[in-house]
Amino acid sequence: MQEVLIDFQPVGRRAQVKRGQTILAAAQQLGLALGAGGLTAPCGGRGLCGRCRVRVAAGDAGEPTAAERRFLKPEQLEQGYRLACQAVVLGPLKVEIPPESMLGVQKLQVEGLDVTIVPEAPVKRYALSLSRTTIDNPQPLWQQAAAQLESTYGVERPVVDYELAAATEPLATDGTAVVTLRGSEAINLYFGRPAPPPLGLAVDLGTTKVAGFLINLETGATLAADGIMNPQIAYGEDVMARLGYAMEGEEEYRRIQGVVVEGLNRLAATLVEKAGVAVTDIEEAVIVGNTAMHHLLLHLPVEQLARAPYVPALTVPVEVRARHLGLNLSPGAYIYLTPVIAGFVGGDHVAMIQGSRIDAAKKVTLGLDIGTNTEIVLNYGGKMLSCSCASGPAFEGAHITQGMRAITGAIAAVRLSDDGREVYYETIGGAPPLGICGSGILDVVAELYRTGVINASGRLDLKHPRVRRPAGGGPAEFLLVPAEETGIDGDVVVTQKDIGEIQLAKAAIASGTLLLLEAAGLTVEDLEEVVVAGAFGTHLKVESAVAIGMFPKLPLRAFRQVGNAAGTGARLSLISMSERRRGERIAREVGYIELMTRPSFQDVFMKSLLLP
Amino acid sequence: MQEVLIDFQPVGRRAQVKRGQTILAAAQQLGLALGAGGLTAPCGGRGLCGRCRVRVAAGDAGEPTAAERRFLKPEQLEQGYRLACQAVVLGPLKVEIPPESMLGVQKLQVEGLDVTIVPEAPVKRYALSLSRTTIDNPQPLWQQAAAQLESTYGVERPVVDYELAAATEPLATDGTAVVTLRGSEAINLYFGRPAPPPLGLAVDLGTTKVAGFLINLETGATLAADGIMNPQIAYGEDVMARLGYAMEGEEEYRRIQGVVVEGLNRLAATLVEKAGVAVTDIEEAVIVGNTAMHHLLLHLPVEQLARAPYVPALTVPVEVRARHLGLNLSPGAYIYLTPVIAGFVGGDHVAMIQGSRIDAAKKVTLGLDIGTNTEIVLNYGGKMLSCSCASGPAFEGAHITQGMRAITGAIAAVRLSDDGREVYYETIGGAPPLGICGSGILDVVAELYRTGVINASGRLDLKHPRVRRPAGGGPAEFLLVPAEETGIDGDVVVTQKDIGEIQLAKAAIASGTLLLLEAAGLTVEDLEEVVVAGAFGTHLKVESAVAIGMFPKLPLRAFRQVGNAAGTGARLSLISMSERRRGERIAREVGYIELMTRPSFQDVFMKSLLLP
Repeated sequence: MQEVLIDFQPVGRRAQVKRGQTILAAAQQLGLALGAGGLTAPCGGRGLCGRCRVRVAAGDAGEPTAAERRFLKPEQLEQGYRLACQAVVLGPLKVEIPPESMLGVQKLQVEGLDVTIVPEAPVKRYALSLSRTTIDNPQPLWQQAAAQLESTYGVERPVVDYELAAATEPLATDGTAVVTLRGSEAINLYFGRPAPPPLGLAVDLGTTKVAGFLINLETGATLAADGIMNPQIAYGEDVMARLGYAMEGEEEYRRIQGVVVEGLNRLAATLVEKAGVAVTDIEEAVIVGNTAMHHLLLHLPVEQLARAPYVPALTVPVEVRARHLGLNLSPGAYIYLTPVIAGFVGGDHVAMIQGSRIDAAKKVTLGLDIGTNTEIVLNYGGKMLSCSCASGPAFEGAHITQGMRAITGAIAAVRLSDDGREVYYETIGGAPPLGICGSGILDVVAELYRTGVINASGRLDLKHPRVRRPAGGGPAEFLLVPAEETGIDGDVVVTQKDIGEIQLAKAAIASGTLLLLEAAGLTVEDLEEVVVAGAFGTHLKVESAVAIGMFPKLPLRAFRQVGNAAGTGARLSLISMSERRRGERIAREVGYIELMTRPSFQDVFMKSLLLP
Repeated sequence: MQEVLIDFQPVGRRAQVKRGQTILAAAQQLGLALGAGGLTAPCGGRGLCGRCRVRVAAGDAGEPTAAERRFLKPEQLEQGYRLACQAVVLGPLKVEIPPESMLGVQKLQVEGLDVTIVPEAPVKRYALSLSRTTIDNPQPLWQQAAAQLESTYGVERPVVDYELAAATEPLATDGTAVVTLRGSEAINLYFGRPAPPPLGLAVDLGTTKVAGFLINLETGATLAADGIMNPQIAYGEDVMARLGYAMEGEEEYRRIQGVVVEGLNRLAATLVEKAGVAVTDIEEAVIVGNTAMHHLLLHLPVEQLARAPYVPALTVPVEVRARHLGLNLSPGAYIYLTPVIAGFVGGDHVAMIQGSRIDAAKKVTLGLDIGTNTEIVLNYGGKMLSCSCASGPAFEGAHITQGMRAITGAIAAVRLSDDGREVYYETIGGAPPLGICGSGILDVVAELYRTGVINASGRLDLKHPRVRRPAGGGPAEFLLVPAEETGIDGDVVVTQKDIGEIQLAKAAIASGTLLLLEAAGLTVEDLEEVVVAGAFGTHLKVESAVAIGMFPKLPLRAFRQVGNAAGTGARLSLISMSERRRGERIAREVGYIELMTRPSFQDVFMKSLLLP
C-alpha cells in the first residue's frame, strides 16, 4: 500500500493517502466532501457536472480525461485546473480548492446578515497510517500516532488526552486512522470506522429557549438546528427566580445546574440524530448565554448577581472539557463559553454584537436585543458602551391580560382604520385569534395612539365606541376582536393596564437608549443605524416601535432587523479561532453603565413613559 | 497608598508594591525571601550581616545607609550594589539578585550529583492591587485581576480556572492579592492571607516505595522530603500481581487506582505539615513512575502491559488537573507525568537518565537502575538505547532464605579471610544480625568466589569447614554468623539456592548489558563510564558486583553511584520547563530493545550465569 502526501488548500488539510485514487476520493476520505457544502460532486463523481473543479498547484495528477476536456478550457488545463473526480493521485499533490468550488461553504448566512468568514476550526484532522503492534514492532497506537504527527505533519510536542487514551484499544492494527487535534492535543480518534466531518455544537442558552446548531467545523455548514425549552423553567420563569433557587443551598444549585446539562445532552442527541451522526462525533462546543445562565451552568457564585452590586463572578472566557461539566461529546471535546460583560450583559450580547458586526460599524450604531432584559449597545467611533434595562416580559405575552407567546393563533399584526372603529389583524398560522403576542400588542398601542383612542399618557378615550368598562368593573378596555371571531370563549381585548405595561416596557428601552447616548455625550440626532436582534426584534413592526417612542425616531431604512444574531455569533466562534478572539475583544472593550446609578435616570424614565 | 512597580531579576518577578518599604520587605511580600535559599537575611534585616546584597539596576532606592557603607565598597555602591534590608523603594525599581545572593538556591544537589539549573517554574506569581467592588465600581475581583495582568504585566489573554473562580469570593475589597498563573491561566489566588512561596510536589512513584519532595518552585529548594509504602502492595507485591488485580474488573481497577491516589494525598499532607504550609498551597506536581504505576494511576488499559506485546497504552507526556485524578492540591493545580519509554522502561527511568545527565554524557556510558526489574540505558555517541531485564527481587531480600530489606539488623557488608574461615560483617545500625540484605548477599557471593568456597558454577565446596548440609537435609549452606552472635534464634546462613538466586539476578543484568552493547555494535571494552542509580545501587559494593560479573569489568573509577537520580529528575522537571522538555526528548530519543526477541538472548544469558 503506497501512500503519498496530499495537501488541500486553503483549508490546510494535509494527509497521507493511497496512491492511485482520485483527488475526490482522497477529499472524501478526509471528510472534505461530506455534509453540506465542501467539494461537492452533484453527479456522484462521474464526470458529468464539472462542479468539483480544483487546481493542482504541484505534483502529478495524470493526464486530463475526456470529461475534463469537456468542462475545462485548454488554458484552464494549462493553469492546473482539473476535475477532482477525474484527476488521479500519482504522487505527492498540492491541491487548491478554488473559491467557486467552496461557494456556499465559507459563507454563514442568517436572516438579514451576510457574514462571510474563512473557517479556522479549533480542531484539525490528520490521517495516519498505522501498522500492527507486535513484540517485534512494539509501538502502540498512540506512539505511532505521535511519531507521525511530529514527522509527517510537523506538530510540535503532540500529546493525548489521557481519557481518550484510556478509551482507545492500545494496540494498533494495519490501517488508516483519523485523529483530531486541538492545538497539539489529540482529543478524538477514528480507527476502523469512517470519520464524519469534524462536528461542532453551537448553543444559544437562553432563559426560556435553548437553540442548538450542529456545524461542520471545516466548512461552517449547519447540518442540523433545533431548540428546546430551558428545563430550568421548572425552578423559576425568570433569571431572578432561578438565582434564588440556586441560592437556597448546594443541593438546589446542583439540581438546577444538572437539569440544564441534561437538557444540553438531550439537544445534542436530537441534533446528531437529525444529521445521522453520533454525539461522540461532536468535537467542540460553543455556548453563549446571559450572565445568569452562564454562571448557573458553571456553578459559579451567584449571590452578587442577584443582589447589589449585581456583578458576575467571572468575565473572562472559559474553556472546559465537556466531560467535566457532564456533557457527553467526543472523549476529549472542549466547551468554550463566550465571556460576559456585566451582571446583566452576557455572552449572548457579545455574540449578538459579533454576529451583527456592530463592533465593526463605521456609523454611530445602536444595537438592541429585546427580551425580559433588554441589552443595548452603542458603537460611536469605535468605542462601545452597553447597558441592560428591565423591560419585563410584556413582549413575551406575560403580564398582558390576553397575552400569549408567538405561536399559532396569536394576533401578531394589527392595523386600525383612521377613526379606530375598524380593526384589521393577522394571526400566526391564520388561525382564529386566541390572544395577542408581542408584535401584536405593540401594533395595537401604536395604532391606538395614531388614531387618538389613547392620549400621550396612554389613557383610553372612554367615549370611543370600542372602548368600554367591563361588566364586572375594573379598568377600561379596547375591544380588539369580538367573541364571534375568536378561537376562545369570549372577546380579545386590550386593557388600560396592558397599555400601561407596554408603556413601562418601552420606557425602559427608550430611557436605556437615551442614557447610553447621554453617557457617550451624544443625542438621538447623532444615531445613524439601529440593529434590532432576537426573535421578537425580528418580528416586530419597526414603525410601531418608533411610533410609541420605544425606538428612536429615525428613518425606517436606518433599522436593521437581524434575527438570532447571538446564534450567529456562537457559530462564528465555533468555526473560527479569529472570531473567538474577536468576541473576547468585544467583551473586553464594551464598557458598561449601570442605569440606576445615572443621576438623570428617574427623570428620563418618567419622560419616556409618555407617548411621543 | 501609593504603589510602584518593582522588577526582580533574574527570577523575573514583577509586582506593584507599596512605596517606602525596603527592598527586602518587598521581596518577602512576593515570597522571594521565604523558605530555604532565596534572598535570605540571616540577621533578620537589621543590617548586621551584609548578606542580602542586591544590585539596583534602575530606579531610586534612596541614599546608602551607614550599614551599607560598612558592607559595600565605594565602587560597589557606585555600581548600584545595595543591601536589600536598607535600600528603600522610592520609585519603580529594577533589582538584580546577584548569583552569590542566590547561591544554594539555583543548585539542586543530590548524593554523587551536582546538577545546577536555573529555576524556570511552570507557574508564576503576580501581585495585584484590588479595590472594593461596588455598584459604582462594578468590577468583580477576577475582572480587576485580568485587567491588571494584561495592563501591568503584559499577560496575553489571561483566563481563570472556572473552579478556582467558583471557590473565590467574587467581590473584591481594597487590598493586595497574589495570583498564580500557569501559562495564562490563573490557578490559585491569595487574597486576605499571606502567600507562601510557590510550592510544588515531586513524586517518585515506585512499586514499593513512594518518595515525595516539597519544593519551592522559584528557588528549587527542598522544603520537606518523605516516603510512604505504596499502598497498592495490599493488592500484590509486584507489578504483575497488581496489573492482574486491575484486570479482574472495573471495580478492582478503580480500587487499586484509588488507594494510590489516597496514598499520594497522605504523602502530600505529611510534607506540608513538616513545612508548615497547606496542601492547597501546592500549585504543581510532577510524578515519575514505572510504566505500570503510571498506567494504574491514570486508569489506562493494562492488558497489553501484562501480556505480549508488553507495550504501554500511552508514551507521551500527560498533564492533568490534580482534582481530576482526585488529588487535593491548590484549586487549579496540574500534575505532570513524565512520559514512559516502553512497557518496562518507565518515566522513572527517563527521570533517572535526566537526573544523572546520562543523556549529555560525552563518554560511552551505561546507566543501571537496579530493582525487581532493572532498566539499563546505553549512551554511545549521543544515541541512546535501553532495555529492561527481570532481575527479580533477590536484592530486596526476597527469595533469599534469610534475606531481608536494608533495615536495622541487616547484614549489609561482608568480607571473608582469604581461606574463607573468618567472616567480617557489618549490620545496619550495628545491631545483632537478623538476616542479610542485598548488598550483603552480593558481598557474600563475591567473597565466596574469591576465596574459592564456590566455583565458577556457584557450587559450594562441601569440604569447606563453614559449608554444611543442614541437619534436616536440603541444599548445602554456608554458615555466615553463628546463632550466638545473631539477634534471632539461630544461625544466619547462605544456601546453595540463595547463591543460585543471585546468579540468576546478576545474569539478567549482565546479559542485558551485553545485549545492549551488541545491539549498539559495541563490546564491554568500549564502555567508559557506568552510572548506578537507586537505593540498592548506591549501597552495593561495586567491587563485589564486578567480581561476580554483574557489572562489566572496568576500573572502579569508571563507576558513579548516584542515589535516587529518578527523584532528582522529578524535581528538575518540577522547577524547570526546559528540564521537562529535556525529559520528553529523552523519552522520545531513547530506543528500546526487547531482550527476549534478540537471537542471542538464550546464549548470552546462559553464559552470564557463570561467575567470571
